[in-house]
Amino acid sequence: MLGGLALSAVVAPHANAASGLLQPLSVEPWTRMPGAPILDHPYGLPSPRESVVVRRAARAWPVPGAASSLTPLADLHGAITPNGLVYERHHAGVPDIDPDQHRLVIHGLVREPKLFTMEDLLRLPSESRVHFLECSGNTASEWKGPSGLPVQLTHGLLSCCEWTGVRLSTLLEAAGGLAANNGHAPRWILAEGADAAAMTRSLPLDRVLDRALVVYAQNGERLRPENGYPLRLLVPGFEGNTNVKWLRRLKLVDAPLETREETSKYTNLLADGRARQFVFEMDAKSVITRPSPGHKLTTHGYYPIVGLAWSGRGAIRQVEVSVDGGRSWQPARLDGTPGDRALTRFHTGWVWNGEPATILSRATDSTGYIQPTREALVAARGLNSNYHYNAIQQWRVDADGSVKNA
Amino acid sequence: MLGGLALSAVVAPHANAASGLLQPLSVEPWTRMPGAPILDHPYGLPSPRESVVVRRAARAWPVPGAASSLTPLADLHGAITPNGLVYERHHAGVPDIDPDQHRLVIHGLVREPKLFTMEDLLRLPSESRVHFLECSGNTASEWKGPSGLPVQLTHGLLSCCEWTGVRLSTLLEAAGGLAANNGHAPRWILAEGADAAAMTRSLPLDRVLDRALVVYAQNGERLRPENGYPLRLLVPGFEGNTNVKWLRRLKLVDAPLETREETSKYTNLLADGRARQFVFEMDAKSVITRPSPGHKLTTHGYYPIVGLAWSGRGAIRQVEVSVDGGRSWQPARLDGTPGDRALTRFHTGWVWNGEPATILSRATDSTGYIQPTREALVAARGLNSNYHYNAIQQWRVDADGSVKNA
Repeated sequence: MLGGLALSAVVAPHANAASGLLQPLSVEPWTRMPGAPILDHPYGLPSPRESVVVRRAARAWPVPGAASSLTPLADLHGAITPNGLVYERHHAGVPDIDPDQHRLVIHGLVREPKLFTMEDLLRLPSESRVHFLECSGNTASEWKGPSGLPVQLTHGLLSCCEWTGVRLSTLLEAAGGLAANNGHAPRWILAEGADAAAMTRSLPLDRVLDRALVVYAQNGERLRPENGYPLRLLVPGFEGNTNVKWLRRLKLVDAPLETREETSKYTNLLADGRARQFVFEMDAKSVITRPSPGHKLTTHGYYPIVGLAWSGRGAIRQVEVSVDGGRSWQPARLDGTPGDRALTRFHTGWVWNGEPATILSRATDSTGYIQPTREALVAARGLNSNYHYNAIQQWRVDADGSVKNA
Repeated sequence: MLGGLALSAVVAPHANAASGLLQPLSVEPWTRMPGAPILDHPYGLPSPRESVVVRRAARAWPVPGAASSLTPLADLHGAITPNGLVYERHHAGVPDIDPDQHRLVIHGLVREPKLFTMEDLLRLPSESRVHFLECSGNTASEWKGPSGLPVQLTHGLLSCCEWTGVRLSTLLEAAGGLAANNGHAPRWILAEGADAAAMTRSLPLDRVLDRALVVYAQNGERLRPENGYPLRLLVPGFEGNTNVKWLRRLKLVDAPLETREETSKYTNLLADGRARQFVFEMDAKSVITRPSPGHKLTTHGYYPIVGLAWSGRGAIRQVEVSVDGGRSWQPARLDGTPGDRALTRFHTGWVWNGEPATILSRATDSTGYIQPTREALVAARGLNSNYHYNAIQQWRVDADGSVKNA
C-alpha cells in the first residue's frame, strides 16, 4: 500500500521503540465511510477533540460578573486569536444589547453633538487593522517571583484580532470638529460603556486621536457579546481597560474626569507610596508559549521554541531566546513583517540533551526599548504595582522533560 | 443627562424624521442590571442577534456529503474570515479523525520515506501566514450573465485565514531529500486526503515547493473538522481543491497521476472542445460586498463602498471602483499593505443621489494582470469552463435603493 517501499524505513523523525511508529499507513474507519454532511454546522465549532482549549478563570471571583477569563496561549498558534478564545475582563458581566436600540453619543467640546445608530456608523468610512489587547493586570501573578501557574493563567489576558470600525477622528469630523468653550479646550476624551458598571475612562486626546477606532467587528464578524457587542473603543497599545466595551458615549473635555477606574483602580502604586496614574501604553513584552508549563518533552532531540512578543509603543524589532538561563541569547525568527501594536509570533529551535534547562525570551520594540528582567522592573516600580508587569519570563525544564514556572 | 446640550442638536449625520433619531440617550435595560457571568461561555459564540450570519448552501445537493457551503461575505468586514464561517466544499462529508491515530506519510522519490504523527509534526519548525482559499468553482453562476444571486452565493466559496504549519520543503528534508530512481525524476507530488473520497491531486513540484505548507492551525487554533482537521495541505494561490484536507499522504512522482479530480473534474473545457488541465493559480478578482444584493440604500447621501480583492499570483496592487457602469473609475483605498495571496479589503465612498446606478470593481495584481470583463473572459474561454471565473462583477442599484445582481 505504500508503493513497495520497505516498511521499516517508514519511521518518524523522532521514532523510538516505545512510540509505536513503526507501523504502515492503515486505512482508518473515517476513510471507509462518508463523513458528516455540511448542513450540520452553518456556524462551525472546533473539533470536540479540542475541548480542553478554552478560556479559563484564574480564580473564583466573589461576584460572577466582575471577573476575567484567559486565552489558552499554550495551545494556540500564529498571531490571531480566534474570537471564541479572546480573553475577557468584565466589571458587571456581559450585557445583552439590542444593536437596533444601541446609540453612541459624541458631545462636550465639539461643534455639533451627534447621536449615532449602528446603521449610521456603518455608513461612515471604516478601516481594518490587526492589534493586540492586553489587560493591564496581565502577569500580575509574577511580581513576587514564579507563581507556578501555566502561561494561560500568567499571560492569557492577551489576545490579538483584526478589528474593523470608524476612526475617532472621523466621528469628530461628523460632530463638526472640536470646539473650545469658555476657556475650556478639548484635551481629553471620556469613554463610557453601556454595561451595568458604566465603565468610564479618560484618555488624552493628542495620544489617541491618530489611532483610536470605534469598532464593530473583530476577525471579520461583528464583535462578540463579551468583547463589546455591538460597539467598543479600540486604542491600539493602551491598557485593555481603556478600550471601553459596549461603548455608548464619548465626551470631549478639558481634563481627566478622575473616574473610579483611573483613581482607586488602574493606577500603579510605587514603593514610596506615590502612584503612577494614566499609564496607558503596555510596554514591550514576550513569552514562550511552547514549551511552557504543562507541556512535557518526551524524548531528547530537536524542539521548536515558539512564543509571542508585542509592544504598545510600536512594532516588535527583535526577539532573543536563551536556553541557558539568560547567559547567552540567540535571535529568533519572526513570522512575516511585525505589525504595529500587534502580536508577533517568534520561532527558534533547540536540541534538548536531557539536562535541566531554563528557557526565556526577551523582546525589543521599534523604539529600542528592551524588555527588562524582573529584578530591574521591581527596582524601578517596587512590589505594589499590581498593573503593567512586563518582565522577562522564564520556564524551567526538568531532567524528566516537565516544564515548570519555577 | 447629556451635559446640558440642546437635545435637538443631538442628531445623527443622516437623521430624518422617519428614523426616530431625535431622541436623547436613554439608560437601557442592559445598563440597569448586571450582565451574564463569564463561565457561561468558555468557548464563545456570536451574539444570537447575528444568527443570520451563517454559511449557506447554494442549492440542495443530491448527496449531503458531496456539497458546499458559502461564506456570508455581505455581512463580513476586514480580510480575516472567522473560523466558524470559512466556506466548505466536501466530496464525501466531514470525517471525524482521531489526531492521535492520524498519520502523514511522505514517500515515492525521496531518500528516506517517513511516517509522521501529529506530535512529530508539532516538533518541526513552523510558520504562520495569511492566505485566501478559493474554490475553483467560485462564481460559476455568472458565466452566462447575472444570476440574480446575492454575493454569498456568487462569491462565497472564498475565505482567508492565518494558517500555521510546516513547510513542504522541511518535510522533504526530514525525508532525506528528493531522490531520482531508475530514470524517474521527482517532478510532481501527489497529495491524498483521509476522507472517504480519498481526494487526490497531482501538483508540479517546482511551483509548490517554495510556498506549500502542511498546516494544522487556522486563525490561531487547530483546524476545524470541516477545514481538514487535523492536517491539510495549503498551496497559497492554487485552486481550493488542491489544498487537500485531512492530508494523509504525499508521494513524490515524476508525472501527474491523472486522478479523477484532475481529469473528469477540475479541468476547464474550452469552446473548441479542448480542455485546460492543471490550471492551478486563481487569477486576480474582486467583488463589492457592501452594498451588494439584499442590501438596501435607505436615504440619499454618502455610502461607503467596500469589497474584497485577491490574486493567486501575488499581492493586490490596485482596486478601482466605478459607480457609472464602468465609464469612469476611481482608485480605492486598501487596508494596510496588501499581503501575498491574501484577501485585501478595499474602500471607497459614494454620494447616492437617488438615481439608478451600476457599481463595479476591478482588481490589478502585482504581476500587472487586470481583472477582465465578462465579455473578454468568455471570448477567451467560451462558456463551457465551469471553473476559474474571475470577471468584473457589477451590481445594479435601483431608484428605490434596492441592490440587485442584474
